[in-house]
Amino acid sequence: MAAIFIVSCNSKNKDEITPEVTISNPLPSWNDGETKSSIINYVADVTNSESNNFIPISDRIATFDNDGNLWAEQPAYFQLFFAMDRIKAMAGEHPEWKEKQPFKAVLENDMETLKESGMKGIGEIVMTTHAGNTTEEFDAIVKDWVKTAKHPTKNVGYDKLVYQPMLELLQYLRANDFKTYIVSGGGVDFMRAFVTEIYGIPTEQIIGSRIKTKFEYIDGNPKIVRVAELDFIDDKEGKPLNIQKIIGKKPVFASGNSDGDLQMLQWAASNKHKSFMLYLHHTDADREWAYDRDSHIGKLDKGLDEANEKDWTVIDMKNDWKVIFPFQLK
Amino acid sequence: MAAIFIVSCNSKNKDEITPEVTISNPLPSWNDGETKSSIINYVADVTNSESNNFIPISDRIATFDNDGNLWAEQPAYFQLFFAMDRIKAMAGEHPEWKEKQPFKAVLENDMETLKESGMKGIGEIVMTTHAGNTTEEFDAIVKDWVKTAKHPTKNVGYDKLVYQPMLELLQYLRANDFKTYIVSGGGVDFMRAFVTEIYGIPTEQIIGSRIKTKFEYIDGNPKIVRVAELDFIDDKEGKPLNIQKIIGKKPVFASGNSDGDLQMLQWAASNKHKSFMLYLHHTDADREWAYDRDSHIGKLDKGLDEANEKDWTVIDMKNDWKVIFPFQLK
Repeated sequence: MAAIFIVSCNSKNKDEITPEVTISNPLPSWNDGETKSSIINYVADVTNSESNNFIPISDRIATFDNDGNLWAEQPAYFQLFFAMDRIKAMAGEHPEWKEKQPFKAVLENDMETLKESGMKGIGEIVMTTHAGNTTEEFDAIVKDWVKTAKHPTKNVGYDKLVYQPMLELLQYLRANDFKTYIVSGGGVDFMRAFVTEIYGIPTEQIIGSRIKTKFEYIDGNPKIVRVAELDFIDDKEGKPLNIQKIIGKKPVFASGNSDGDLQMLQWAASNKHKSFMLYLHHTDADREWAYDRDSHIGKLDKGLDEANEKDWTVIDMKNDWKVIFPFQLK
Repeated sequence: MAAIFIVSCNSKNKDEITPEVTISNPLPSWNDGETKSSIINYVADVTNSESNNFIPISDRIATFDNDGNLWAEQPAYFQLFFAMDRIKAMAGEHPEWKEKQPFKAVLENDMETLKESGMKGIGEIVMTTHAGNTTEEFDAIVKDWVKTAKHPTKNVGYDKLVYQPMLELLQYLRANDFKTYIVSGGGVDFMRAFVTEIYGIPTEQIIGSRIKTKFEYIDGNPKIVRVAELDFIDDKEGKPLNIQKIIGKKPVFASGNSDGDLQMLQWAASNKHKSFMLYLHHTDADREWAYDRDSHIGKLDKGLDEANEKDWTVIDMKNDWKVIFPFQLK
């Protein structure tokens, strides 16, 4: 069922040459070895109509976590940097923030104090920057932000910090008639504003956390307004619950990098069809970051044990990937 | 962009001959006239890449209400008949129901008393029959039911009471690269169990009301259990809210039959693209049912006024449709 296909270059920068992906070399940025061949063997098996493991196209649902799985998540989630940048942009209208926590910490780039403010403080930053506008206004704000924002240590746009091997995997699965979904703890409307272009995944295949909304109809103009209250957290058991609510089918292919993805992988593992569970292990302190069991972000502990116990595929970033980011391609 | 296509017969009964749908006759069960031509002219315009009104394929989102719009909804919602049949099937284990309302009314087919029990009584019937099992168990129960259940007055299976002209419209839109969604006040898991086959709409394009669910992981077996508490009512302003949550795009084509669909049509009408708003008016007491402003079910009052005021297309069932149900085709 595999077709010959080309991975299109997701960047507009002509210097970034993306390798040609063909049927004979479907994952060019992956080193040969067990990880790569386990993926290719699975796809070949379940798309072969002669195989006992053949999966009909309508059931080929593939779900991917985003933060730390399709793009980086260090030193903090990109969406937190967006919220901090927004606080700075809004500070002119809020002179009181100079002396008021947690806003003061954000304005002073004081990550330690912000971290100490805990879920309450960070929640206040998120709600202040994510609510009180319409869905269309919020979309425009995020689109504007991503045009100029830079990652604090890598000093490139956040949209450049996607994993080249995962872009190839998404393309490879789609070329084999899998429907690729993002199922992320990140905010769904934050992602929708710009990741469609990066990953080739339409808005209706992006699932995430969200705040409440209300419908208003004033003088013939309907609006959906974002309200400062959590509606659904798409993490841990929230992932299979949201997958069932929105897709209504179990994934056959599930990919994540943290304990927050474990329930999604367990859900996929219980599929009546042969399924594939994939963990990304951050092992590359030189080219990306190395972290797992003790990390404050993207903690991978129980998930790693369960992957080992159940023989799920674990990507060793350092050894399995030729390059990490598209801009590292020669 | 229109391709030549055939409407497949959605029934397994060979006696039911479905007319051939071709590019020159895309809606064969619709009488020629203003309604039919307004649909065809719209589709021709927005799929013509030379037109100022051209809509890219990724934005061709079409949303359809279900009850009273794709299938009948009289004398009560089909899902209520399902719930009543389930109460009867479960009654052997609940001898106390013989004397206890609202169960007694259901067991005695006493629709008047059931109606008098109001939202509280009907809610109790719905929760008793829809919760307390896993998503997989509920799916199997609905599939079993639809195999043998018969409509109380038409005396055919509920899956036979779909509107042939709407099946053709769904096919016609899909042939023109529209993505067709159901956005219904009905229960999403109830619909998903069998309407995919009827309408050719996959589970992930079915949006509806739902009860809460919880994830359980016992001895290595993940389950999603249905809880007797409402999670979301997909009606009125709930429709655009759910469309935004799940699809993340405004529809360009929205079709409904009651005031419960009005906000969805208003939302589509505010699309930056040229959009099409369609109301089905039940005017055919002989072949189906005739009801609108004063109906206890599928009330169409404000919607009819707004459609007239804004020049939305209103289907006059009696005059616009050659046949109503597929089994009436010669």
